Amino acid sequence: MAVKVYGLPMSTNTLRVLAALNEKDVEFELVIVDIRTGAHKQPNFLALNPFGQIPALEDGDLTLFESRAINRYIATKYAEAGSDLLLSSGTPAERAAVEVWLEVESQQFGPPIAALVFEALIKPMLGGTTDAAVVEAETAKLEKVLDVYEARLAQNKYLAGAHFSLVDLNHAPYTNYLMKTPKASLITSRPHLLAWWQDVSSRPAWKKTVAALPF
Amino acid sequence: MAVKVYGLPMSTNTLRVLAALNEKDVEFELVIVDIRTGAHKQPNFLALNPFGQIPALEDGDLTLFESRAINRYIATKYAEAGSDLLLSSGTPAERAAVEVWLEVESQQFGPPIAALVFEALIKPMLGGTTDAAVVEAETAKLEKVLDVYEARLAQNKYLAGAHFSLVDLNHAPYTNYLMKTPKASLITSRPHLLAWWQDVSSRPAWKKTVAALPF
Ligand SMILES: N[C@@H](CCC(=O)N[C@@H](CS)C(=O)NCC(=O)O)C(=O)O
Ligand SMILES: N[C@@H](CCC(=O)N[C@@H](CS)C(=O)NCC(=O)O)C(=O)O
Repeated sequence: MAVKVYGLPMSTNTLRVLAALNEKDVEFELVIVDIRTGAHKQPNFLALNPFGQIPALEDGDLTLFESRAINRYIATKYAEAGSDLLLSSGTPAERAAVEVWLEVESQQFGPPIAALVFEALIKPMLGGTTDAAVVEAETAKLEKVLDVYEARLAQNKYLAGAHFSLVDLNHAPYTNYLMKTPKASLITSRPHLLAWWQDVSSRPAWKKTVAALPF
Repeated sequence: MAVKVYGLPMSTNTLRVLAALNEKDVEFELVIVDIRTGAHKQPNFLALNPFGQIPALEDGDLTLFESRAINRYIATKYAEAGSDLLLSSGTPAERAAVEVWLEVESQQFGPPIAALVFEALIKPMLGGTTDAAVVEAETAKLEKVLDVYEARLAQNKYLAGAHFSLVDLNHAPYTNYLMKTPKASLITSRPHLLAWWQDVSSRPAWKKTVAALPF
């Protein structure tokens, strides 16, 4: 039985999971949970994720939610298939770098880029009006993070070091959307970050993932 | 050589790491980085953590930062000592629950409780004045999360299931501080959550950790 992903293809957090499944070439069924109609707050979805957010994953008897937890599960369960996303056969230093930079994505990069993408891209799509002051405040926060990334990527091809890993993959959904906003210059003005994004976004599994996107 | 933790004992994120080291009975040296004097923005600390935040950990040649990444490193490196914090010998369902609820702590519980504890407890200690509107807004967000926790703990002794794990430990620093604010009722009014906290906070390793706190 194929694993089931509950979510929406345009949702960044759903995309994160789809990207991992594609990277591992795992067959899946996408079950649409339309957050625009409130489907994620209905009892049948709350039974999968009591926090009422997409995505959730069903694999036989197991149910998981939180996109980063799901991706670690996929990376571990399908360790042998495709790239070694947790660098589990790497050196202790490589494995430690994966752990550290997975957390950096979640704690440092995630909050400002999510707020910026919401304000500049998602809000207008939902019929709202972008608040320029919010965009500038989140841009300022994200710039500080990306300055650290630029220095890191000047020394290392990928965020965890020499090899592509789940760290890079987990960054892809929001970076992809940022590139569609007037703040794409946050990436394009930083040469190592731009080269990293061109590499990460040209992977076949990522191209397959975004091919299903409506924009 | 003992591992070195760079941080401050009263910092929640430092405490998270100290709690894991104590749970595993690992000897460590605490190197004080006083964020009140800006020591975390000096070049020698930025070389350990380019984001300029405490804690950081040094273990021989390895340097790690981000408290949750450090704790996973400790739980993995000292897997055999003390409790099996990642339930690595558990069932697939137990291991999946650890992954999911580690992320719940980071994504759902962390942001509102950090904002609430800062506003109600830390800000006045730094000479500022608590903004009651912020306290109420964060309380409302945290209540929704804690309602899910209460339902979870009505069915399971610990957040990941039947066994104490890194999930429970990672919640301890902020819960401990919340109990010292006028919003302790968020915990005490929820019987299963309160029983869980009484259990988690009475573990010898946690008592040892907080014994070093100035308040
Ligand atoms: N930390 C969660 C965040 C999930 C999330 O925010 N999902 C959004 C869609 S991208 C959602 O369900 N929003 C509706 C809501 O929060 O009510 C994860 O990584 O899975
Ligand atoms: N996500 C980081 C957060 C670290 C953090 O916020 N540390 C605080 C002290 S508890 C700090 O260094 N604050 C000073 C600053 O951010 O400039 C972790 O879990 O380690």
